[in-house]
Amino acid sequence: MLIVQKFGGSSVANAERIINVANRIIDTYKQGHDVVVVLSAQGDTTDELIEKAREINENPSRREMDMLISTGEQQSVALMAMAIEKLGYPAVSLNAYQVGMYTSSTYSSARLKRISRERIESEIERKHIVLVTGFQGINRFEDITTLGRGGSDTTAVALAASLDADLCEIYTDVDGVYTADPRVVKNAVKLHEISYDEMLELASLGAKVLHNRSVEMAKKYNVALVVRSSLTNAEGTIVKEAANVEKMLVSGVAADKDVARISIIGIQDEPGKAFELFSMLSKAKINVDIILQSVGRDGTKDISFTVSKDHLQDALAIINDNIARLKATTVAYDDKVAKVSIVGAGMATNAGVASLMFEALYDAGINISMISTSEIKISVLIDERDTEKAVNSIHDHFNLGI
Amino acid sequence: MLIVQKFGGSSVANAERIINVANRIIDTYKQGHDVVVVLSAQGDTTDELIEKAREINENPSRREMDMLISTGEQQSVALMAMAIEKLGYPAVSLNAYQVGMYTSSTYSSARLKRISRERIESEIERKHIVLVTGFQGINRFEDITTLGRGGSDTTAVALAASLDADLCEIYTDVDGVYTADPRVVKNAVKLHEISYDEMLELASLGAKVLHNRSVEMAKKYNVALVVRSSLTNAEGTIVKEAANVEKMLVSGVAADKDVARISIIGIQDEPGKAFELFSMLSKAKINVDIILQSVGRDGTKDISFTVSKDHLQDALAIINDNIARLKATTVAYDDKVAKVSIVGAGMATNAGVASLMFEALYDAGINISMISTSEIKISVLIDERDTEKAVNSIHDHFNLGI
Repeated sequence: MLIVQKFGGSSVANAERIINVANRIIDTYKQGHDVVVVLSAQGDTTDELIEKAREINENPSRREMDMLISTGEQQSVALMAMAIEKLGYPAVSLNAYQVGMYTSSTYSSARLKRISRERIESEIERKHIVLVTGFQGINRFEDITTLGRGGSDTTAVALAASLDADLCEIYTDVDGVYTADPRVVKNAVKLHEISYDEMLELASLGAKVLHNRSVEMAKKYNVALVVRSSLTNAEGTIVKEAANVEKMLVSGVAADKDVARISIIGIQDEPGKAFELFSMLSKAKINVDIILQSVGRDGTKDISFTVSKDHLQDALAIINDNIARLKATTVAYDDKVAKVSIVGAGMATNAGVASLMFEALYDAGINISMISTSEIKISVLIDERDTEKAVNSIHDHFNLGI
Repeated sequence: MLIVQKFGGSSVANAERIINVANRIIDTYKQGHDVVVVLSAQGDTTDELIEKAREINENPSRREMDMLISTGEQQSVALMAMAIEKLGYPAVSLNAYQVGMYTSSTYSSARLKRISRERIESEIERKHIVLVTGFQGINRFEDITTLGRGGSDTTAVALAASLDADLCEIYTDVDGVYTADPRVVKNAVKLHEISYDEMLELASLGAKVLHNRSVEMAKKYNVALVVRSSLTNAEGTIVKEAANVEKMLVSGVAADKDVARISIIGIQDEPGKAFELFSMLSKAKINVDIILQSVGRDGTKDISFTVSKDHLQDALAIINDNIARLKATTVAYDDKVAKVSIVGAGMATNAGVASLMFEALYDAGINISMISTSEIKISVLIDERDTEKAVNSIHDHFNLGI
């Protein structure tokens, strides 16, 4: 088999951990598999480099930032190659240039476009364990780009797709995908498998297991994905096209505290006002999540929506600059909120899921301020302080625990 | 004019120094010149990376070592680009790939073979200040190589040659080439100019101002070279083809304590014995400097020679392994010696230089254990403890001071 393995920054944070990971990689290699490994930068390296840059220029160009931080992954792959060689196995490290990892030209949030197979395949043929820098690529000017935070997951899945790998293993500090955050819900259960779509909802809902774009790519190219721990030998969670939908109505509960609600009160009820607002925010690259529109008094309407906390100030500034144009009276916000969601592929065909969720929140005495639904998820916005209580109550009501 | 400037690791060791250097670069650019800058890794970065590698593998492959340590220069050029941009001027950083800096395949001591002009010239055309990673290249496999310690000087001179630059400025922590080490000889004088050949002798004699290979390359391609301080605005020393030979019989005095003497006693006086010895050492990449052969007793001869201190143990091991084959009786060594040399292009045509040097040493009560001469230098091996006294006495006798 050809197996692509990805290890994150904490798994390679120091010499000891690098040697541990090297042993894991060698275990797979010794079973007769071809192994391609994608690595992130060590521990806090990326943050330290960003800090170094900020000391010199608080607003550096993205091109130079990518040139700077891409060195972190290059150090990781070189050190890992040394560790594997030390243990007596053949390895070779490759950066984005050497692999031919072509991306779009957008620095700091580039999209992978094409991966050359030649170099990696020739190294595999020579029975080398191939170590590839995650997170980075080169654009058509041969300049270094990066894929944005968590981009190493995407690198791994893209490599697996490009090389027709049999399996893509994402090693992380949790041992799989759970029905809820095990630190919050004591009897949370590890899922044996989950569908791409459910995983996508969970990833974007703050489950923080896999980078969203990597799951999209895995779905698109039908890459067999496994999420497992780099610390234990536990089996992990398989992410694939159709998971056992019948058995599990709801796969999991996720909570996201990185959210703030903005309310614009008394907007003149004219066509196009909502569109105007959201197109302004979109131009500023501010993602809007849950949207609630309600009819107000005297021919006006109120619009509430959520954004991530780090976009709150920018969003407020844009709205306040345009409050006259929007013909609104007041802008309010609340950054002490949380979004709690349930995800399940079986949800669409099963009535009663929503009402069971609301019952769970009601039983816990929790107020719902906004609701959003899709085919496979239901999200509610609640007071931030109620998050853990809400997750536990929902988890119990759906019998997700052991 | 097109000017190539090179700044070493201590000049870019922290944010403050990077901004200082950025200002210097901009000063040149503002005078209307095209500027290409070569940078080393920051301060101790290279040493820290080597230490990191050693924690994992005390004998890492050179390929992976080059992959690892080449990240240091990439960080420097990116940070410098950010500093220049912060100050309002356009800059772009380029690594060895992007420039097309092709070298031989020998990792960790590669030789520059060919530099593509396209990318740099197109950046210059767009009026960018171009920042290039020193010390590194890529080989024909597209793998990263490094040029060995001090290789950034060579990068700068090679770029100047390849781009037909009008001037190559090497910025360092001294403000030029002196008649002797100013820390040892109080009245040492800065030379206004010096010839390539003299500089070559001084570099290899331990003057530590310029990397030897860079001077060879400057001589070969007739690159106008200036050595000057990155800390002051002092004029520096020009290194060129024919310096003012008449005026200066002797350009300077240099001392080198990184030297050890090995003596092999009682070698059977047969043809080829010396050749055998030195070819064994050469195969082990051990450079031999001064050689002295003397006739011993009973049809035997003694051979003494010097090597650098870090080659001493290897050399002794090789000799001891082959002592029977060499038909020698004893091997002795002394690592408490120093080599003191005078260099001057006018020396060859002037009798009396050698005797004045010996007189200087005699007056200071210093014993000479070996002597070596070339057209433009005389070197003597003395007791290490006499080094400073020797350099001062020679400096005085040749009236090199102010």
